[in-house]
Order: sequence, then structure tokens, then C-alpha cells
Amino acid sequence: MSGISMQRGRVREFGITIGRFPTGPHNAITDVPGVAIGHVTLIEGARIRTGATAILPHGGNLHQEKIPAGLAILNGYGKLAGATQVLELGEIETPIILTNTLAVGRAIEAVNRWTLAQDGNARVTSVNAVVGETNDSRLNDIRAGRPSVEEILQAIDCAATGPVAEGAVGAGTGTVAFGVKGGIGTASRRIGDHHLGVLVQSNFGGVLRIDGHTLPEGDPTRDVDGSIMIVAATDAPLADRNLRRLAARCFGGLARTGAALSNGSGDYALAFSTAESQRRTPARRRFLADYAELSNEAASPYFEAAIEATEEAILNSLFMAGDMTGFDTAKGREASVAALALGALPITAVRAAP
Amino acid sequence: MSGISMQRGRVREFGITIGRFPTGPHNAITDVPGVAIGHVTLIEGARIRTGATAILPHGGNLHQEKIPAGLAILNGYGKLAGATQVLELGEIETPIILTNTLAVGRAIEAVNRWTLAQDGNARVTSVNAVVGETNDSRLNDIRAGRPSVEEILQAIDCAATGPVAEGAVGAGTGTVAFGVKGGIGTASRRIGDHHLGVLVQSNFGGVLRIDGHTLPEGDPTRDVDGSIMIVAATDAPLADRNLRRLAARCFGGLARTGAALSNGSGDYALAFSTAESQRRTPARRRFLADYAELSNEAASPYFEAAIEATEEAILNSLFMAGDMTGFDTAKGREASVAALALGALPITAVRAAP
Amino acid sequence: MSGISMQRGRVREFGITIGRFPTGPHNAITDVPGVAIGHVTLIEGARIRTGATAILPHGGNLHQEKIPAGLAILNGYGKLAGATQVLELGEIETPIILTNTLAVGRAIEAVNRWTLAQDGNARVTSVNAVVGETNDSRLNDIRAGRPSVEEILQAIDCAATGPVAEGAVGAGTGTVAFGVKGGIGTASRRIGDHHLGVLVQSNFGGVLRIDGHTLPEGDPTRDVDGSIMIVAATDAPLADRNLRRLAARCFGGLARTGAALSNGSGDYALAFSTAESQRRTPARRRFLADYAELSNEAASPYFEAAIEATEEAILNSLFMAGDMTGFDTAKGREASVAALALGALPITAVRAAP
Amino acid sequence: MSGISMQRGRVREFGITIGRFPTGPHNAITDVPGVAIGHVTLIEGARIRTGATAILPHGGNLHQEKIPAGLAILNGYGKLAGATQVLELGEIETPIILTNTLAVGRAIEAVNRWTLAQDGNARVTSVNAVVGETNDSRLNDIRAGRPSVEEILQAIDCAATGPVAEGAVGAGTGTVAFGVKGGIGTASRRIGDHHLGVLVQSNFGGVLRIDGHTLPEGDPTRDVDGSIMIVAATDAPLADRNLRRLAARCFGGLARTGAALSNGSGDYALAFSTAESQRRTPARRRFLADYAELSNEAASPYFEAAIEATEEAILNSLFMAGDMTGFDTAKGREASVAALALGALPITAVRAAP
Repeated sequence: MSGISMQRGRVREFGITIGRFPTGPHNAITDVPGVAIGHVTLIEGARIRTGATAILPHGGNLHQEKIPAGLAILNGYGKLAGATQVLELGEIETPIILTNTLAVGRAIEAVNRWTLAQDGNARVTSVNAVVGETNDSRLNDIRAGRPSVEEILQAIDCAATGPVAEGAVGAGTGTVAFGVKGGIGTASRRIGDHHLGVLVQSNFGGVLRIDGHTLPEGDPTRDVDGSIMIVAATDAPLADRNLRRLAARCFGGLARTGAALSNGSGDYALAFSTAESQRRTPARRRFLADYAELSNEAASPYFEAAIEATEEAILNSLFMAGDMTGFDTAKGREASVAALALGALPITAVRAAP
Repeated sequence: MSGISMQRGRVREFGITIGRFPTGPHNAITDVPGVAIGHVTLIEGARIRTGATAILPHGGNLHQEKIPAGLAILNGYGKLAGATQVLELGEIETPIILTNTLAVGRAIEAVNRWTLAQDGNARVTSVNAVVGETNDSRLNDIRAGRPSVEEILQAIDCAATGPVAEGAVGAGTGTVAFGVKGGIGTASRRIGDHHLGVLVQSNFGGVLRIDGHTLPEGDPTRDVDGSIMIVAATDAPLADRNLRRLAARCFGGLARTGAALSNGSGDYALAFSTAESQRRTPARRRFLADYAELSNEAASPYFEAAIEATEEAILNSLFMAGDMTGFDTAKGREASVAALALGALPITAVRAAP
Repeated sequence: MSGISMQRGRVREFGITIGRFPTGPHNAITDVPGVAIGHVTLIEGARIRTGATAILPHGGNLHQEKIPAGLAILNGYGKLAGATQVLELGEIETPIILTNTLAVGRAIEAVNRWTLAQDGNARVTSVNAVVGETNDSRLNDIRAGRPSVEEILQAIDCAATGPVAEGAVGAGTGTVAFGVKGGIGTASRRIGDHHLGVLVQSNFGGVLRIDGHTLPEGDPTRDVDGSIMIVAATDAPLADRNLRRLAARCFGGLARTGAALSNGSGDYALAFSTAESQRRTPARRRFLADYAELSNEAASPYFEAAIEATEEAILNSLFMAGDMTGFDTAKGREASVAALALGALPITAVRAAP
Repeated sequence: MSGISMQRGRVREFGITIGRFPTGPHNAITDVPGVAIGHVTLIEGARIRTGATAILPHGGNLHQEKIPAGLAILNGYGKLAGATQVLELGEIETPIILTNTLAVGRAIEAVNRWTLAQDGNARVTSVNAVVGETNDSRLNDIRAGRPSVEEILQAIDCAATGPVAEGAVGAGTGTVAFGVKGGIGTASRRIGDHHLGVLVQSNFGGVLRIDGHTLPEGDPTRDVDGSIMIVAATDAPLADRNLRRLAARCFGGLARTGAALSNGSGDYALAFSTAESQRRTPARRRFLADYAELSNEAASPYFEAAIEATEEAILNSLFMAGDMTGFDTAKGREASVAALALGALPITAVRAAP
């Protein structure tokens, strides 16, 4: 596998605090009760650097107990499966899978099989699998057909609540951001009694800004290709309209990291609520039902928290990813991606020894 | 296979003329030069009634020679793959596949494999597979995993120009519309030197109107479930903006057939142009290039032709589909779908003997 | 004023029944309790044929007691004011004004003044006036600056519940549809305990279909220019998401009348709910509140009713409009618009003498 | 009038450089040849602090020689007139007016009158006036009906190329951003032979970041209300699709300044091209025409430049606005807005004496 930089750690361990809202206990998307994350990480030989990450909004039957959701697209250069139904109905009925660009079909197949096999779904004939992707072909031989359907099913099956592995894991195994190793990152914010968590798969470019600081000219962190998938979760009772609006705010956090928002960067944000009062249960879906909902006016703090958590989740995805060599399709050789030049930053606090 | 009604035939054979524009020579989407259609039809035992239909916009390398395209969504209750990239970039780079709801992942996999294997695509690492679907579970055991990836590849491989098989073929093998057998239908219109063709996969409900006439009360043609995929092609040099607008007009033809446009009906229309002057070749994509384009003002006749051709394509999909028995998931038994009660219609011309 | 055809009457008086749902008592948008309509009709000399129509969703303070609303746009060639805020927040906070294309600014000014002056609005500094328009310049000297701000205020002030005047009144005074006189039309449907009503300002073209019948070739009813504004109201507790979806279904009714959906036809549909359980009161907007809402699945009958009511409202707008002469900007002379050639239609029932 | 801070100046005069692209000669939207800006600034007594800003894309007849344009909406809580037609047709046919929230109707009326009176427009009966706004009611008595139609016409009539006045002028006279005085700001970037310029009307909130630095806790620059209008111009031959995409990137610059993107913040970006090869002349609009267009792939540098120019234009709007007292509707008294606490920033270069 890859060498690991001595300086890996979450951005807060380096004394960097993003924004003004407090974090949740894990500073992770899993601070939203019930949300579970599963990674399958594939590092094989010189050519396979890929994987899948599954986000399960709750531990019940998602197809029966659908959750409200919103989707925002800053740049639709991507293959997000399930997009139009999420927008139309304002709901999600499956795990969300993140993987590589050419694995979307296999991920849909995995989600469909998983859903059809679940207790209570014997009569289900329609499944809106939600699958996001970024292109990991700078480190991964993406044409090789991995992860397989079965490997993606493992990501769903191993999903767990609690702390979340970050960096070069799951769908972030082979991704590159700002010309350095990207990956999976997460962060959370507490707003009153509620939490809002964000998980990202970073694979985009620009001129990296860390807490507002850019690295010196000539630094490798200048690269404009790639994409990002952002998933936000909250237990606040936001309905689909305000979840869509919250998703759009995640792009504020993306922009603050210095993203170039190039033509080729697929930039998507999904947001969902786990609130019981917004859950679309079989009983509620039958006809008329009561939903407790935060008003448009009350949504602003959640919007701001989404910006903060996204910025921090992206930085965590970079700071937690070590060096990685792999397959470079474009150049026909293995590429070595440099570690973050953290020494060049005016970071005052030093991370405690691991 | 199923029994075939004596009265099968295209609507024009019954003396029904839709609209005022002339048709192309085949009255089919293949009247647009270069467009090829391939069907794989799966009818096995009592339970498998499904398939796939491939639409190839031109015979060259679609990934290298992309075509301008637009997408309109009247009701996004569906799993259309590739939607966001078509909308963002205004282009298509693969065959378009129609199939059943649970086969979308396999169809993406098929399109990806086909594209990666094509001459000239050895370095391709990103493919935006466009796959539409409707739910054929009233006649097909949709949970059984058919068509397979390989079967869908057959639909691409067998695609041909010329006359198009209609009715219970390809992606229309198991579909039901207005409570009777639906399927694949096509029609075309000639506008000056150009053609506009439409192909549909009909699987929706409502109160059927044939040339403005509804069938008597109590008729089986009253059913509100289901969806429709509409694909329109033209050789007119419409850019993506006007292709998106043209796609939206197809819903006018849908509405005229009596569609109920219910919550559960995924209603999508894709439109593309094969015009050389709009083709996004590698040379044109490099930087700056000239494109000949019809103005917004000049688009109106094409819009009207799209309404007409969609209405006629839907009627052809019904008129060309014979009786079919199959698997009824909902009721746990085989269902028999009645033939169209054409005798009840005030249709004056009689179809010539076959 | 204009000569009036002997055959004016609502379509049902001619024995034409559209669809399968029953109508409300007035077969008008005002069958939704609380909805009030006001017209100002301006017919002066040979050149002024215009006006304004105000739709008041309820009789209270609309700015304080906002109502959920949705907007659908089939073709955005129009000047609808307020569109983006309705889409973003899913609500309306003013009367809806319909008028001519060049009067939109004056109508906004009228709505703003009316709102600022209302009891309880002394601190209001933001008003999202919703103003739709069509272009009545074939009969009206639209450049002459009428209606004025004050005239539009009259339309709001005279709004009343109960029967609604149709044809060449209010915003429909100078409109033309299918090459004959258009105008204001309305219709309603009853769905269980609820009503759904539609009001249109018809000014578009195509090949007119009356209950599925087209008029003979050579008939004047073939004209492709123009636009339509559609407003749908219901007392069913649909939230903004399903109101937007319902608005999109109104275009089904438009298409069934034979609309050509041309480049220049601005086709907009607004839908709102007057249900108390969906009203956005100051108390509910403060933070968290309960809303009773019909599910996505339960919305289908309302969708179908919206198609029917729109088709019938458009036909009423034509059938209730008499001949009109006026100012023809394009030709520099007065134009005479022919009456509907009803005799050419296969209509069996004869309208009762007035 | 207001006292003026000693430290007013454009951000570059303080040694702050945003991004990596060079600026144009004026570092203003008017670096795009032909673009003219006109301000009308109204400061009267204690209560009137408002105005209008006109952006003329070229000096010819805009209604006859339409220009391609795109619109992006991050948060549609605003009253932007003309939005749906810009989105549908991808073009602008009038000056763009920025003003206050309650003046939009008057601004439409002004644009309509100006357009109808222009040589060559004697037969024009439809005008899509594009009017943006923010709410200046914290300093301005917005209910007082200013600017008038005539005052807005002055802004169009006085438009000029060359340097652009910034700060508390025109539509920025009464605006507030980050709790300090906002206003009009502009900046530009050079990309090869082309220029891209941005002009903003800043009136929003958040936690201000200047070149990545936030001000100390307790600083007044923490305020979450308000909105922003962003207008981007370029002479690069981008078609409407890529102009819409470019407009969306402007929000990247907004986010980098620390915007909170709250519920009440209407965040809109318009982009247009003045390129001759994209101009929609009467000849081109007749039927088929050639357009030279930059490809999707070639648009990335323009996208990145739009982010940079927007960030700098916003900072210029703050740095160029002096202290202002005015009418505070919310508190019923005059408010004094603090000057920017620039001393608290780690800004190394000192601005040259004025």
C-alpha cells in the first residue's frame, strides 16, 4: 500500500477551526443519530485504487420508511443515479452509494438487490437507487471493472454508526483533490438540539485555501480537474424544500476551500433528514398526514452550518489522506502524489503525537 | 408467445391521420438519417416479458463525436440515468437504452462496456450512459434480473436503420398502457428538408383518446398507473437549448392521447440532433468552433411536429401490440390484457388485409 | 363595444362535457372557498382593448397569512413577475394579477401599493408581487400604457367570490386564441370534499380541438402565436411540492385543446392551496409547526382534475368571448376576429335559449 | 450626507490580490468593450438612501441586437424581473437595472418606455425587462416610492463606458453587507484576448473573510440578512449554456467572502456575452445562422475568472463605501453603520495616500 505521511490528522488537530458552530461528538456525519457509514477499500497491485462508501440514513427499512431529501447541482457533469426522482418526490428510499464513475451501474444493481432482498420488500418492483461518483482514474485503473456488485454490497453490509474512517478509504481510495491525495472526509455541527453532518468524496481541483490561507506559488495544490460528491444529513425536521436549499449551501463550503468549479467538475450535494416527524411511513403515505416542519425562516442556521461542515469535511478528506501511488491512465505509468506541504502554512498549533 | 389480435396495424392503416405535417418514408425515428434501432425481446415461460431497445444516434463513435441533446421532465418519477449531464452539457455520448426499471444498472454497465471496447476509446475513463425505463412488472417478473448485461449489449449490437418493429418488442415487451398492451411505437414528420422522428416506450395510464375520441364508459382503457419514455431525433441543426425545448413539446402529444399524468408516471422526453453542423467533434471541442444553428424563432414548426409525432408514436405502440399474458406481481397470477376495442371507435376507413 | 355572437355560452351549455370528475357549483375557480376574482375591462375607441384580472387566494391579509404555491413553466417566453421567489419558498403573499405584456411593471407597482397600505403591513418592506401576462397587441394598442397602476388597483378592489365573468373581460379583453377571440375562462372539479378550480387568460395558437374534434381545413382556427397564463386553486391540503407538480399537469389540458406550443408562446401555470392546515401564518413561520399534507401518492386525482379543468377553462374562454374589433399593430389597421364556427362541429346537444 | 472613512479605496490599493488572473485596465466590468454603467444616487434628508444602476451590454439597439445570456439562482428569495425568459431563450434584449426591492415595477416601466422610444423599435410590443434588486430598507425609507420611473430612466441615460463609481452609489446607495456599508463594486479579469468583468450590488450577511482572514470575534461584521445581485459580462464567445454555467460560478466568489447564504438572501447571478459572433441580430434570428462558440471544455478559465472577479467586486463594494446614516425601518430611528475595522486585519501593504 501507500506510505503514510507523519502529519495525518483531522484539521482540528492542527489547530484549525472552521466556522462558529460547535461540532457534534464525533465531528462526523454519524453524529446524526441512526446514520451509518460503510466503506469497501480496494488496493490491489499497482492498478486498483478504488472502492465504495455506503451512507445509510437510518437502520430500518428505507424503502418502506422513506426520508425527505433534497438535491442541489452546481455542475451536472456527473452520473448521479436517482437524481430526477429525488428532485420530483423529495425523498430517498435506499442507501446512498458513492463510488467511481464507471461503477455506477454496478452500484445500482447492488442497491436494487439489497433492497429486494430486505424483509418486507417481497412485493417491491421499483427502487430509486441513489449513486454518486467521482473519477478516480488518476490513481485507479477505472476500466478494470472494480468495485464489483458484490464488493459494493459489502460496503452496505458493513455500515456502522460511530466514528468514520477518512482519507484514502471507500469511495475516496483513489481520488485526488487540489493535486494531492483526496478522499473521504466528514464533519458535523450542532444547532440547538439538532445535528447536521456532512460527508464528502473529494476529487476536484483549484487553488487550495486552508482556513483562508493559500499555499505558495509553485505548490502542487493547483489543479483544476475533478468532481465532488457531498452528502449532508440532519435530524432537524426540515422538509424536502429546505433540504434542497440546504444542499445548495454546501457549495459555499466547497468554494471556500478554493475549488475552481471547472467544466469537468461534477459538483453535487444531497441532503436528507432523519427526523421522525418528516419520515414518510406507509401510514403517512396512504393519504393525509401531519408533518412537523421547520419554517423557511428557521432554516438559516442549518444553512450556515452546512457551509461550515462542508468546508471542514473537505479539509479532513485531504488531511487524513496519506501518500498514494497508483495507476495513471493518462500517462501510462504510476504516479506519486505529494503529501500536503503543511509546513508552508501559518498554522500555529501543532498536532499532538499520535 | 402471445396471441396476436387480427386488428394489429399502425394507426394510419386504420385511416387515422394525426396532425398536419407529412410523415417521413418509414414514418419512424429512423427517417432521420443514421439513426439505428435495436431490440432484444425476452419472452420466456409465464414470467419473463421484458427486453431492451437501443437507439443509436449515428453510426460513428458516439463518444468521440458527441451530439447535442436536450432533456425535458414532466414528472421525474423514474430512474433515467445520465440526466444531469445531458442537462448540464447539452450533449449525448452513448447509445440511449430503454429497458425495465430494475435493469437500469445493468444497462449502464452494458453501455460502459460497449463504449470502452470501441475503436478509438482506449483512453476513455468517463462515460455518461443514458438509460430510460418504465416498469413492466404487470406482465414481467421484474425482480428476476432480466435483461442481463449481455442481453442489453445484444440490443446495441443488432441496431439497424430502416423500418422499426413496434408493439410488444424490446423495451416494450411487457409494458401496459391505458389498461391494454402498450409497447414500442414510432412516427416521423417531415419539415422542409429535415425529418423529426419519435420513438416511445408506452407504459402509462389515463382515459385513451384516439384522434380525439374516447372509448365508451366501462372500457378497460381507464388506468392511471405507469410511465413513458419518449426519444425524439432530428437532422435539423437545433442546438441543445432548442432540443430541450422541443423535448418539452413531446408532452403535448402525450397529453393528447389522454394521459392522466399521475404521481407515479415517470414522463421523460429526450431530443437529439444528428446535424453535422451541430456535432461536437474532437476538433470542435478543442476550443472555438462554428456551429450552424436554427434560431429560437425558427424552431416552432419542429416543436409542433414533435407534438404530432409523439401522439402518433404512442398510438402506434398500442395498435401494434397484440394480446399478451404474463406474470402479475400484484395479483400473484397471470394476467390477460384485453385487445383494443377498436370496433367501438368511429373509425371509418378499414385496414387492408395484411 | 363589440358585437356579440348569438352562440356565446359555456361549453357545457353546448352539451360538451370534458373529463370524468364532477364540477363545483359555479364550475369556476371561485368554487374554492375564499377565492375572489376582480376584472377591470378597458374598451375605448378603436385602440384600447385591454384590462387586468386579479385573483385573491383568500380574503385575509395575504402577506401575513401566506399560502403554499407552486409554479410550472412549459415555455418561459413571458414576463411572469415573482417567479423565482414562488419557486424558492413555495409560497405566494399577494394577489395574482393577470394583464398585458407591457403592463407588468405597473401591476407590480399596484400590488406593492395595495400590500403596503393594508392593515397590519406598516412594517412590510418586501413584497413578491406575482404578475402574469399575455400579449394583446393584435387587438389592443399595447404601447399606449394601459391599464394604469390605478386601473389595476381597481381590479384588486372589486374582486368578489361567486360566479366569474368570462370571455373578453379583464386581462382577456384583447386576447386572441386559435385565431379567434380568446379571453378569460374558468372551470372547476370536485374531488371528494375538495374543489380544484382553474382560471385562464387564453392568447395562444394551434389547431383547435373541441372535445377532440378539429374544425375543417381552411378554418381560421389555425394560428400559432401567443401565450397562456393558467392559475389553479384548491382547498385540498397540498404542499408546495405537489402544487408545483399539479401546475405542470395543467399543460395537459392546454395540449388537449390543440395548442401548438410555439417558440413565442409563454406557457405558465401557477397553483396554490387555501387549506388552513397549509397556511403559513406568522405563528407557523416562527419556527416549528405542524402541517397536514396529502402524500405524493394521494395527489393523482387532483392532477387529473387539473388537466380536465384547464381544458374546459380554455374552451370557456373561447366560447364566452364575442366578436371584437380593435387595433392591429402588425397590420396598421383594425382587425375583425371571426366568431367560432360552431356549426361545423359535430355537437349534438343544442344550447338552451339564453 | 454621510461621513467618509479615511481608508476608502479598492482592495488592491490595500495590497490585497484576489486570485491568479490579471485584471483588465480598469479592473471593472467596463473592461468588456461596449459595456456602459449608469448610476442614479438618491440621498435626501434622513430617509432617502437609494438609487438605481443601469448596465448596458452594448451601445446599439439591444432589442434588435439581442445578446446571449445565462442566469443562475443560488437562492431565489428575490424579485428578479425577466428571469424566466432569460432562462428559456438564453438572451437579454434590454439594459439590466439594479434597484431596491419595491422599485422593480417602476424599473420595468422605465425599461419598457426606454425601449419603445428607441429608434427602430416602433413596432415592438414585447419587452423582457431584466431588473434585479436588493432590500435597502435598513438605511432607506423603501416604502417612499423612490427611485421613480423617471429617476431610473436617468440611470440608463447617463450610462458610460470607462471607470465605474463604486460604494454607496446607484443601486448600492443604501445597501448593507456583513453589518457594514455595502454598495456597488466591480472587478475584471483578462483571459487571453478576452475580458470578463463583474459588477455587484452587495447587501448580504455572513462572517466577512478578506483574502481568507476573518475579523476578530465581536466585530460588527457578523450579520446574516440580505441579498446580492451579481452581473458578469464577457467578450468571449460563450453561448447561453456556458453563460448560465459561468453565472453559477460567481457564487463561488460570493461564498469566499464569508456569505451566510441565509434563507432571506436572494442570490442571483446574470452573465452575458458581447461577442459579435454570438450576437442575435435580426439576420441571424431569421432562420439558420453561424455562431462561433467556445466549447464546454474551453470554458473553465472563464469560470475560474468569474469566481475571482466576483470575490474582488464584493470586497470593492465594501472598501469603497463610506459610513452612512439613514432610515432604519426596523428600529424606527436613524442607524449609523460602522466603518470597516481594517486595522484589525493582517494587511501588510498600506494604501498610498489618496
